Amino acid sequence: MRAIDVIRKKRDGDELSPEEIEFFISSYTADRIPDYQVAAWLMAVLLRGMSRAEIAALTESMLHSGSVLDFSDLPGRKVDKHSTGGVGDKTSLVIAPIVAAAGVPVPMISGRGLGHSGGTLDKLESIPGFNVNLPLAEFRRVLAACGCALIGQTAEIAPADKKLYALRDVTATVESPPLISGSIMSKKLAEGIDALVLDVKTGSGAFMKSEEAAASLAELMVETGVRMGKKMVALITDMDQPLGHKVGNALEVEECIEVMRGEGPADLTELCLELAAWMLFLADRVTSLEEGRRLAAELIASGAALEKFREIISLQGGDTGVIDNADRLPQARQRLPILNRSDGFVTSIQCEQVGVASLVLGGGREKKEDIVDPAVGIVVHKKVGDSVHAGEPLATIHYNSDARLKEARRLLEESYAIAPEPPVAAQPLIHRIIQGTRHVEAGK
Amino acid sequence: MRAIDVIRKKRDGDELSPEEIEFFISSYTADRIPDYQVAAWLMAVLLRGMSRAEIAALTESMLHSGSVLDFSDLPGRKVDKHSTGGVGDKTSLVIAPIVAAAGVPVPMISGRGLGHSGGTLDKLESIPGFNVNLPLAEFRRVLAACGCALIGQTAEIAPADKKLYALRDVTATVESPPLISGSIMSKKLAEGIDALVLDVKTGSGAFMKSEEAAASLAELMVETGVRMGKKMVALITDMDQPLGHKVGNALEVEECIEVMRGEGPADLTELCLELAAWMLFLADRVTSLEEGRRLAAELIASGAALEKFREIISLQGGDTGVIDNADRLPQARQRLPILNRSDGFVTSIQCEQVGVASLVLGGGREKKEDIVDPAVGIVVHKKVGDSVHAGEPLATIHYNSDARLKEARRLLEESYAIAPEPPVAAQPLIHRIIQGTRHVEAGK
Repeated sequence: MRAIDVIRKKRDGDELSPEEIEFFISSYTADRIPDYQVAAWLMAVLLRGMSRAEIAALTESMLHSGSVLDFSDLPGRKVDKHSTGGVGDKTSLVIAPIVAAAGVPVPMISGRGLGHSGGTLDKLESIPGFNVNLPLAEFRRVLAACGCALIGQTAEIAPADKKLYALRDVTATVESPPLISGSIMSKKLAEGIDALVLDVKTGSGAFMKSEEAAASLAELMVETGVRMGKKMVALITDMDQPLGHKVGNALEVEECIEVMRGEGPADLTELCLELAAWMLFLADRVTSLEEGRRLAAELIASGAALEKFREIISLQGGDTGVIDNADRLPQARQRLPILNRSDGFVTSIQCEQVGVASLVLGGGREKKEDIVDPAVGIVVHKKVGDSVHAGEPLATIHYNSDARLKEARRLLEESYAIAPEPPVAAQPLIHRIIQGTRHVEAGK
Repeated sequence: MRAIDVIRKKRDGDELSPEEIEFFISSYTADRIPDYQVAAWLMAVLLRGMSRAEIAALTESMLHSGSVLDFSDLPGRKVDKHSTGGVGDKTSLVIAPIVAAAGVPVPMISGRGLGHSGGTLDKLESIPGFNVNLPLAEFRRVLAACGCALIGQTAEIAPADKKLYALRDVTATVESPPLISGSIMSKKLAEGIDALVLDVKTGSGAFMKSEEAAASLAELMVETGVRMGKKMVALITDMDQPLGHKVGNALEVEECIEVMRGEGPADLTELCLELAAWMLFLADRVTSLEEGRRLAAELIASGAALEKFREIISLQGGDTGVIDNADRLPQARQRLPILNRSDGFVTSIQCEQVGVASLVLGGGREKKEDIVDPAVGIVVHKKVGDSVHAGEPLATIHYNSDARLKEARRLLEESYAIAPEPPVAAQPLIHRIIQGTRHVEAGK
């Protein structure tokens, strides 16, 4: 088999066989196909698309380019959640403890912030001492001990994705649903899970701005997971404004603790309960979503979720004191409120701009080698639909550098739209649910 | 400006500005953009296409990546011809001497065989001693001395094309009309010519199998040349069977000498007269095509064309004895006739297969580093429409290696279709003529 024939076939819009995809991916992982041939192929994939069968084969090849974890010796169905990324999107830190507290193991391999969106690993690392770089043996030990472990991608997991992602990043081939699906699903399926809940974001703060694009990506991923024998569901959820009130690494950990205390904002709490309910349901821990929601709420009310979070922090080397005293989390030295100029209602918040504002403050990385400042971020006081008076603060910037403040302030001020009348209808938090049946034998 | 933004813009189907194209091409030529980014861009160009303005900008950038020759100190309008390649397509060796004999300078930079199609340089090198690798100063000296010089691409001419072509070859991005047009036109316009005649082949032995594809490529190239101030014409000519009777390097030189003696096959002679007439007409040497045809025929009849060829061979170090004695050209050691099996008529010849048969014998290169055998090839005795008896030879294979004979024989036998009735209508030799006006200000 020759690489150029595989490129030509995809270029001409023909369907690649599983053998051709496996040849291409495994040869690339082993450095036997040069970057320039893969770059041409990636562009052909982006522009020609892939059939469901091709996406499944791609995912399978990427998955088996590295280790696939096996936790079948641990009791219970293993379950995880993956979000496509947003602003203030911090549910993992709440739902992993809830689900683990219910006795369902959650082996979670997460990512870092990407562009305007935050990342679970960066948030966890704002907890002093918390180690996300556990070797796989230690990952297993923590998972066995407390039912949950939260780490970053290791060299053993889907190395093909690591190489492909770096190449996609510099060849303008990131924005391809088949490639996004392959990348996400190969990493998640390597976790040795039985079920996966996808939180696919849509709106101004999401990578998929339109609900159609989000739903289409969600369908690809659900079907791919189902083809590989996993129980799958995707929730298309709202990212047209920040989730909850806090954006920024330490600020988001603080807000998660508030949720687990039963004192969190309504939207964030609702989404956490919903995602946890689906995880419990797919793991057969409960027999209905309703029961799942009730159980999740009980685990918060009883303090069991928060205790589980304390246990995880402790096992991964973090300072558990942050749970009782948020001041132990990194704090920004300065704060600046963004004041509203006229009476009225918040009709929209340009959500990506809020994320970029946090990024500009140092909460994310503009370049790969940038160091994240865990303390900075934004506290959003007013959300869409809220009434607001002139002079009232819309949000507060938490910052450490005057040089970075100006741009963040401009972005934040411009992101709010205020009008005399309230918006006609509020966006639902959950737009759509795409469920995978146990197995679908689908064609192209 | 960033390479990735140029890739993304083309990926999304937007039109690149001349500045963006110039940045991309000049940076790549200077090794400031890596192969993998250019590979992704090439695939995007192939799948998204390019506007006429983009193709002109691409050609201009590739042209100016190296030296552009200037022969304005030599009297007369300089003219050249370029063929997209075929089987037995040997007209350059006839028309360059004719046109030069008429006093019109022909600075011709040619290529080597590519796949099943022959190359002018390989044919010329079958003449003992003939040197196609003249430095540019020597090229100018020969041109000034006899009105024609025939060389290969030097390092100074369009280095961007050299890099791009090598990359296209391994990334399945050869077959893109905008890229083909840019590649051909940048090299040809670097010759310092005032006018160019394009011979765009169509049919089973051409790279563009359909007449529509050939005409569309021809239009792109004609318009690009016109935009750059050149007089242009493209003849869409037949390559549904080999041109003339001989295929193979030394065999084709022999047949060219026959044409210049007035003893060549009708189709080849007719096409040579037609192409030469257009060259003379575009160079303002004659005032009508009819006059051009007449002048070309006279230069053959008087022996002036053949004497010019002798002069060129002599100035480029070749053995002029081949003109009077074809036995001085390399001769294959063995011959095998391909015999016909049943009475009837030749209804078609799969022309690419004939070219591949010659390639397989050693007349071309399967890999870049292969050495061409100048002596081998095929003499075609029967062409489309000819009546043929059982046992009569259709063609004769000239070969040096028994090992290579079998495959060539099979290809040749399979390429002939014989039927009891003659074919309904013969293909015209010239399908269409696409002429460029002096200057067209065209949009996208």
